[in-house]
Parts: sequence; C-alpha cells; structure tokens
Amino acid sequence: MQTLTVDLGDRSYPIHIGPGLLDRAELIVPHLPQKRVMVVSNATVAPLYLARLTAALEGAGVTVANVVLPDGEAYKTWETLNLVFDALLGQRAERKTTLIALGGGVVGDMTGFAAACYQRGVPFVQVPTTLLSQVDSSVGGKTGINHPLGKNMIGAFHQPQAVLADTDTLQTLPARELSAGLAEVIKYGLIRDVEFLAWLEANMARLRALDPAAITHAIHRSCEIKAQVVAADEREGGLRAILNLGHTFGHAIESGMGYGNWLHGEAVAAGMVLAAQTSRRLGWLGDADVARTRAIVRAAGLPDAAPELPFDTWIESMGHDKKVEGGRLRFVLLKQLGEAVITGEVPETALREILIP
Amino acid sequence: MQTLTVDLGDRSYPIHIGPGLLDRAELIVPHLPQKRVMVVSNATVAPLYLARLTAALEGAGVTVANVVLPDGEAYKTWETLNLVFDALLGQRAERKTTLIALGGGVVGDMTGFAAACYQRGVPFVQVPTTLLSQVDSSVGGKTGINHPLGKNMIGAFHQPQAVLADTDTLQTLPARELSAGLAEVIKYGLIRDVEFLAWLEANMARLRALDPAAITHAIHRSCEIKAQVVAADEREGGLRAILNLGHTFGHAIESGMGYGNWLHGEAVAAGMVLAAQTSRRLGWLGDADVARTRAIVRAAGLPDAAPELPFDTWIESMGHDKKVEGGRLRFVLLKQLGEAVITGEVPETALREILIP
Repeated sequence: MQTLTVDLGDRSYPIHIGPGLLDRAELIVPHLPQKRVMVVSNATVAPLYLARLTAALEGAGVTVANVVLPDGEAYKTWETLNLVFDALLGQRAERKTTLIALGGGVVGDMTGFAAACYQRGVPFVQVPTTLLSQVDSSVGGKTGINHPLGKNMIGAFHQPQAVLADTDTLQTLPARELSAGLAEVIKYGLIRDVEFLAWLEANMARLRALDPAAITHAIHRSCEIKAQVVAADEREGGLRAILNLGHTFGHAIESGMGYGNWLHGEAVAAGMVLAAQTSRRLGWLGDADVARTRAIVRAAGLPDAAPELPFDTWIESMGHDKKVEGGRLRFVLLKQLGEAVITGEVPETALREILIP
Repeated sequence: MQTLTVDLGDRSYPIHIGPGLLDRAELIVPHLPQKRVMVVSNATVAPLYLARLTAALEGAGVTVANVVLPDGEAYKTWETLNLVFDALLGQRAERKTTLIALGGGVVGDMTGFAAACYQRGVPFVQVPTTLLSQVDSSVGGKTGINHPLGKNMIGAFHQPQAVLADTDTLQTLPARELSAGLAEVIKYGLIRDVEFLAWLEANMARLRALDPAAITHAIHRSCEIKAQVVAADEREGGLRAILNLGHTFGHAIESGMGYGNWLHGEAVAAGMVLAAQTSRRLGWLGDADVARTRAIVRAAGLPDAAPELPFDTWIESMGHDKKVEGGRLRFVLLKQLGEAVITGEVPETALREILIP
C-alpha cells in the first residue's frame, strides 16, 4: 500500500492505494466521528464489493446501512440523489453519520454532494472502484450532479475524510473503462510531467494488463500531481483549470453525441488531441508532439480523433462549459508537452479549422 | 440607515437596515464581480418590488434577469429550486453572475442554496422583505430546502456578499407575518439580552405599528446578537445552537400540524413558551419568568401555548430535528431570562408533563 496526503490544512486527508484495501476497516474507522455509516453504491458495484466492505466495517464495530443506486451517468441526477436523502432520513442519519462512496466517479460525485448537503454537511469517505475515479474524482473535493442543460452544473466543494483506492477492484472493470481511466492518467503527464508521460509510453502494456506495481505507481503519481495542483488552488481560481485539459472539447463531445455514448475518458482523450492540435496551430507544439499525443492515446485504447459535429454544436456546447468568463471561451492548451496553460486567445478561424477538418 | 458588519474574516459582509434601500443600487454594485445579476423572487413580492429593484440596478448599468417562484413554504422544494437552475442555465449565467434574493425566508434560503450549488458556488445578495428574514435568515449563512421527511434537511452554509433590509417593505407585510417575525426578535432577548427583552416589553405597540425608529432598532439589535453568536461558531459546533430556542418544539408543531398551517414564527413562539416551562421544571426559571415569556409572546400577537399533539408525534418529530446527537434529544433551554443553555438532560417524564398538560 502507498499513502499520499492531500494537504489542505485542517481538511487534509490521506489517499491509500494498493490491493486488498476493501478489507481494511482500520483505514476508515479513525475517520468516523460516530461508528455509523451509510454506504452508497450502484447496482453494478454493490454485488461485487458491498458485502466485503460491510463485513469489514461491521467487524470493526461499525453500524452499516446502505443505498444502492442505478448505475450510469444518466442517473447522475437530482432524482437519484434524492434516493440517498430518502435513505438517510429514513434511517435518521445524524450529522456525525459518515457516507461512504463505493463505486466510480458518478457514485463518488453524488455521494460527495449528498454529504455536502445533508443537514448542510456530513463527513464522507471515498472508496473508488474504477481507474478514472481513483486517479481523478477522489482528489479535489468536487462533487455534484448533472442538469439537463449541462454536466456537473450543480454541486459543491466538499473534501473527503479519506480515500481508499483498492487496485484489486480494477480486475472487474471492463477494458473500455480501464482505457477511459488511462485518459486522465495521460492527462497528468501532458499537463505537468513529461517524464511521467515517457514512463507511461514505456509501460502502457503493463498498465493495460493491470500489473500491480505499474498500476499503483500510475495512480500514485496521478493523484500526486492532482493533489499538488488542487492544494495550490482549492477553489478553482486559476491554476486548477489546467486539470481540464481536453475537457472543454470533451464535454462538447459528450453533450453533442448524447451523454453515455462516449465515455467521459474517451471524450477527454479526443479532446486532448484537439487541444494538442490547437496548441500546434498557435505555434506552441510541433508536429512530433501532436503525433506523440495521438500515439499514447491510441496505445491506451482510446479514440485519437473527435466525432464529426456541426461547428455550431461545438461552440454551443463549449459555451455551457464552466470554463467561460465574460462570455469568452477559455481553453487549456499545451505550451509544450508537460506544461499546460490557460488561454482565452484562440481565434474562431483556428477553432473552425481544427474542429471541422 | 444603520449598517452592521458580520465579521467572518474574508467572508465578512454588511447588513444595511433602513427605509428606501430598494432604490439604492450603490449598496449592491460594489459587491458584484460582474455587472450581471439574476433576481429570484416570488409571486407575492415580485409585483410589489421587483420593478423598483430592477430599475435601480439597471440605472447603475447592471444587466438584470429574474425568476419568479411560487410563494410559500410548501414550495421550498427541489422542484422549485430547479426553476432557478433552469433560469440560470437558460440565461447562461456564469460563475461571476450574482443571485439576488428578493423576498422572505423561503426565497432567501432557496436563493442562497442555489447560489451555493450553481457551478459549485456563485455570489449572492439578500434583500429580505419580511421581518422574519430581516432579523433571522439574512444572518448566519444557512441555506437550504425541505425534504418530505424533514425541514431544512438539505442545504449548505453559504454567506451572502451583502444584506439590504429595507424597512419600508414591512408596510405590505400581513400583520400575522409581522407577529411571526417578532417571535424571533423576542428570542434574541430571551437567549442573550434581558435588557433588550425589557425594551421589547416597553415598545411592543410601537413595533407592531411599524414605528420606523423602533423597528430599525429591533432589527439592528437582533442581527447584532445573531451575528455575535454566528461569528463565534460559524458552522454550528456549539454556541450557535442557542439560536434554536423554541425551534425543536417549534419544528415538531409545524410538522405535527402540517407545514403551512402554523407560521414558523408562531410555532417558535409556542416553542419558546414550552422551553420556558421546561426550564422551570428543571428549576432554572421561576413562575414569574414563565409568565413574562408568555406575556411578551401574547403582546406580539403570537400563540403562547402549543396545540394538542399525541406524545409520540412530539417525540417522533423532534427526533428528526437536526439538534440530535447520538440518538439523544437535545434542547435549548433558559438558565435565566437572557441566558440560554443547551442540554441533553431532560427526563422523558418532564417532557411528558409539559407537552401533555
């Protein structure tokens, strides 16, 4: 097991990474203000891991209730969130009851938001079971739900008490979702650490085969980079926006294709290629850099090109993204591989060339 | 105009109190990160004051959109809140768009919660138009909505940028609601300032006649006491709970009688009398203190006795209140007039005697 601390003053918390963590209640119990928890999971993950986590916690004297949500981004809605509130109120959960998110990013985002709002804030612990959620949504404190007019538009910043990333749970993850998680891992290399990018290029086959040492390192380094960025800018004033490399384009792809058709990581992968191409258009990256970006994305089993969408659809969808200020679209681009920058200075002609090739 | 500052470090904000503030956009504009606002009001208040506030803001160069919600506690729900999100997203409101709550406590709580959640947090300004919201919900940062199983169960702490309490708006407030607001004013005297209680006893007729100097003083002193308590305990760890004098009983009355039948302030008034009676039962207050409590409540036009409810209904409803810890009911009682205490040590026999007289 490796442990990393996200440094946020009195809201600092540990991320534990490694095999077999589901059974280790001693990593959770010290964070509970009361030995009472509500595990929130989904219909896919609960049959695989809920009993084990429950047994471990009950063995440590914790009273465990649970609520199982339908699985999928389509259910990241108020209606589903309300099932958590119904369960909490039905069980008379109190302000010191801790929520535990057992599942992927959707479960984590919704559980975190439920914890942020229930009685105006209760503690929560993340037990992410997908690579995407292990490297991404378990660091940063972003929680929320979707609105028909935009993704993640309703939410809160709410930090967990602890994160347990059990790498064993990736054994049951579909290959397509593993690849989607690798998109975010690649992102950390692209925005902040060209050496990590090179390590990923050399180790992609081991990662896709779930080699334990490789996967633990990839998660650890990804969380480390994200934690550094988040610690420097907890509430997304500036630097933190670089974590959105590929996301402005990616959200437009997800929205333009209908949520759920492209996985978030797939859309981000294609979005990172678009960001690289835009960066080349601005003279920051060379052809070889763009080729390298496409190659690592392909090696991870991800799409290296965006789907065809009308130009107006792109602009419309990107305008709903949160990275808008004063009505002007802002993009995260690459000054070079390993160094992201934020810019509002992308001419529409350049965008049009790249989006409608 | 009187101005009071709620001292919360970098989230400190002013409360302006006095006549004619609706027209004074210069009190709002310095708090806007962008000259763009969304006014949230309700179907009762909007026809009275929305045009005036809008004209003042537009005169100061602010772009003003609005959304008008149905009026009443029954609409303090997710469905109504979603009308605000629909409007914000429909207007493409950004992270620097400011929400302005124009209305009573329900509008304030929902607007504040919408501001807390929209894109994970945007600024908001309170323009409370009822006495209750001027003395109570505009200080403290509590926002939220109701759930079928409990009042204010879903919410957030989110501080406004500024509060404008225009005392002229009380002219259109029904007398019954003015009395309900006075319940909270009386509460501040009971929990923290016996001299203010005496001043209220001497000036109740002037207050009910909306004498400008008297009403401004009552609002100012109430906000001052609440601000002191909140500044000492922003997130409700301890002291702040004294603000809930009468509320545990009051919530049970509101819930037991069906929300909307008793006004919140009416239920709190009867709840404060029950708290005084319980305090006498524990030997803290004398008969004269209880009589004085009942008399000031009656003088304000408020009920000085609770409705008849089955004992189990009381216990059941109070158990859903947020002031529960470790399954034990906690009460805010009076050590003496002007000094509230929090206790978990009320024997069930005592409760039964007081609730089922």
